[in-house]
Amino acid sequence: MPHSSFGSGDADDAATSAATHPPSADDASGGTGESPAPALLTDLYQLTMLQAYLERGMEEPAVFEFFVRQLPERRNFLIAAGLEQLLEYLETLRFGPRDLGWLESTGRFAPEFIRRLARLRFTGDVDAVPEGTVCFADQPIVRVTAPLPEAQFIESRLINLLHFETLIASKAARCVLAAGGRPLVDFGLRRAHGAEAGALAARAAYLAGFHGTATVEAGRRFGIPLSGTMAHSFVQAHRSQIDAFRHFVDCFPDDNTLLIDTFDTLQGARTVVTLAQQLRPSGKRIRAVRIDSGDLAQASRDVRAILDQGGCGDVGIFVSGNLDESAIADLVARRAPVDGFGVGTRLDVSADAPALDCVYKLQEYAGRATRKRSAGKATWPGRKQIERHRDAQGVLARDAIVLEEEPRRGERLLMPVMRGGRRVGPPPTLAVARGHAQRELASLPPRLRSLDPGEAIPVEISSGIRALARTIDGE
Amino acid sequence: MPHSSFGSGDADDAATSAATHPPSADDASGGTGESPAPALLTDLYQLTMLQAYLERGMEEPAVFEFFVRQLPERRNFLIAAGLEQLLEYLETLRFGPRDLGWLESTGRFAPEFIRRLARLRFTGDVDAVPEGTVCFADQPIVRVTAPLPEAQFIESRLINLLHFETLIASKAARCVLAAGGRPLVDFGLRRAHGAEAGALAARAAYLAGFHGTATVEAGRRFGIPLSGTMAHSFVQAHRSQIDAFRHFVDCFPDDNTLLIDTFDTLQGARTVVTLAQQLRPSGKRIRAVRIDSGDLAQASRDVRAILDQGGCGDVGIFVSGNLDESAIADLVARRAPVDGFGVGTRLDVSADAPALDCVYKLQEYAGRATRKRSAGKATWPGRKQIERHRDAQGVLARDAIVLEEEPRRGERLLMPVMRGGRRVGPPPTLAVARGHAQRELASLPPRLRSLDPGEAIPVEISSGIRALARTIDGE
Repeated sequence: MPHSSFGSGDADDAATSAATHPPSADDASGGTGESPAPALLTDLYQLTMLQAYLERGMEEPAVFEFFVRQLPERRNFLIAAGLEQLLEYLETLRFGPRDLGWLESTGRFAPEFIRRLARLRFTGDVDAVPEGTVCFADQPIVRVTAPLPEAQFIESRLINLLHFETLIASKAARCVLAAGGRPLVDFGLRRAHGAEAGALAARAAYLAGFHGTATVEAGRRFGIPLSGTMAHSFVQAHRSQIDAFRHFVDCFPDDNTLLIDTFDTLQGARTVVTLAQQLRPSGKRIRAVRIDSGDLAQASRDVRAILDQGGCGDVGIFVSGNLDESAIADLVARRAPVDGFGVGTRLDVSADAPALDCVYKLQEYAGRATRKRSAGKATWPGRKQIERHRDAQGVLARDAIVLEEEPRRGERLLMPVMRGGRRVGPPPTLAVARGHAQRELASLPPRLRSLDPGEAIPVEISSGIRALARTIDGE
Repeated sequence: MPHSSFGSGDADDAATSAATHPPSADDASGGTGESPAPALLTDLYQLTMLQAYLERGMEEPAVFEFFVRQLPERRNFLIAAGLEQLLEYLETLRFGPRDLGWLESTGRFAPEFIRRLARLRFTGDVDAVPEGTVCFADQPIVRVTAPLPEAQFIESRLINLLHFETLIASKAARCVLAAGGRPLVDFGLRRAHGAEAGALAARAAYLAGFHGTATVEAGRRFGIPLSGTMAHSFVQAHRSQIDAFRHFVDCFPDDNTLLIDTFDTLQGARTVVTLAQQLRPSGKRIRAVRIDSGDLAQASRDVRAILDQGGCGDVGIFVSGNLDESAIADLVARRAPVDGFGVGTRLDVSADAPALDCVYKLQEYAGRATRKRSAGKATWPGRKQIERHRDAQGVLARDAIVLEEEPRRGERLLMPVMRGGRRVGPPPTLAVARGHAQRELASLPPRLRSLDPGEAIPVEISSGIRALARTIDGE
């Protein structure tokens, strides 16, 4: 790892590189909103601290770790996610001429600092748990080792990415556990918090075991299977419900889900039966219906009966409308004849816990371990690892947080993913990460797979970490 | 308004226009993440419905309205926001060659449909309440009148934008009311849901009366005043706290806020006094301190006393750490000597109500009014307006939701903002919208300005709307 990111290249480099940028930046030039975030998507203090560090030559290696201080009340575990977007950000981080010009125009910064900013690249190392891994409070999910100015500067966007995808993957995993194998589709784009949240929520949910998303951009960008039905307005825009249904089936004879609750759900189901009978000679078929309101358990049973009695036993029932893991579990417990769930807002905003108490904290600078001791917010010092212990059946039994240098006693979760600003290997595909997440969920003890709060597995803080903390506090 | 958006131009137009795109798209080509969202940032069903409409020539004018069905328990009102981003989206909406190629590759859509998509532009009309306006449940905030395919297609992104900024502006307004005039700064980027949420939360908060943000990109993009302090890691990376403080003041002699709670808040305050005495001969001064943990009311009083006794009466106290409107109100009620508040996560995710129950519903198609009657989700039909009535002091007294065609009885809130796909006038500056929001907050009756739930003002549904609903239901 180079000692500093400011030692090579020059300002022209930043301008030139805009044309030869990595894939994600090229995408952005198509106006896609697929953002390697701008370098300016940061907190002001990252820039002021950066200037202070550079002015004094404080460019020794620093170690920062990202972790969640405390799990929300209704989360028994987290699913780590967002690493891929973080690495993309680190690989493409640079200040463009417009950024630099604007910073200069504010009059806040020294001209020499602006010139050095033009050469900022991330040249550090990243160790991280693979996406899809089950994690708990206090466990380092990502560790960054880089010259202090770089390691500090990336904080805002690093948290912004890791926080959101981990938040959504953790919520989605609960829906997956509740659904007991029935397919789940992300419907949340419209009430996700902005464009990026919509696309990344689809990714995080798929990673955690969802079967697809309605968000087209997530299909294009991440290869997630797409799924969709129709809106109430489609039914309303036609002269009659049966006309709307027939029109849609004519257009999409192989893949159609008809929304039957615009006026009256049971009447909608009977209309489907009538249409199916009319369609029979043509060979066209209705694949599924969707119910989006009312008592979904009762409605799905009534609709199932109408469809079955009408010779539509092969037409599936898909439900949506304010679903979350509790509502899904309730439908499953009530044996509602539901073939799939559309989960929207409550997933994409993680409605019962819309934020995680996560931080990115300095653990070591220039070879010296450090910690903060603020009231209620103290941290453990040093370069840490997670060691995981499983029982004979592979079920997660206990974890330890240890210093990287302590003797290895179990499976270690943090792996090298970036060295000297470059990825250690090609990124795992999303399918691979999704498979990993499924195995991780399967390895949870039953009390943690439950939607109810379950006693956490023991997470030991190693004697090495405790001794280091005492040493620092005594200094 | 042209009858259809598909009648002119050709596929080349879309490719060419990428180069001559409006400002926001040019920005995106700089890799800024500042997204006119991609056309593919939509739900799959928008595309399937679009194909169905086009195949059958269902391109008559449709009227859709965006409104919130029910306010969250802890919101007495909403502040409308996000219109500016919506208009930007509508002006720049087009499918680029890459989008079209990808859609074709899925095999889902007819080739003729893909060719027509290349010509899709938004050519419709938009009427809306100005950003910063106080609104309530069921009130149309934005009304779109356009050929059905266009009016329908924009739904997903329209809700995605209006929902988020209205959500945050409404939360921020409560913080503004609680702070009683003391400055508030948005600190929420890191735990906002992705890049766009970070930037737009800063905008929505500023619109609602915040004084600034720490998010640099929001400063560049929207001209919002920037504000920042320092991180705990800055203190930790130095050999001592006083060294860190001195270093920062040396770098930023005019604008510095020192974070004093890394180890012990009161010790931090005493260190500030010591440093201030050392700095006196140089003329450099410490502007403020920040406290980020512990009992902020008690800590701010203790710190105030230490600073005052140490001759630092001019050093301000800024507080942060899990703040929201309740915590701010508590600090104000306890007369904590606080000069400003940094509000982060709980603002940017609207933690107590992370989503609004908002929808965009078809009200009329081809001159025929319509409504949905789904259980618990019925809507009122027709092209609607909000009429507002104030008392002699200008305080909001009651509203009516009326049909646009009914005789005017009060101030009407929805204004024309777009005609035929073009803005009616130049966009109001953010400062103008912010001023409007401040006047709106001032015009609320005290019970609605309270953080506690207050009885809503009467919102009458006009006899014209009720009669129209009866007519439709009887059809």
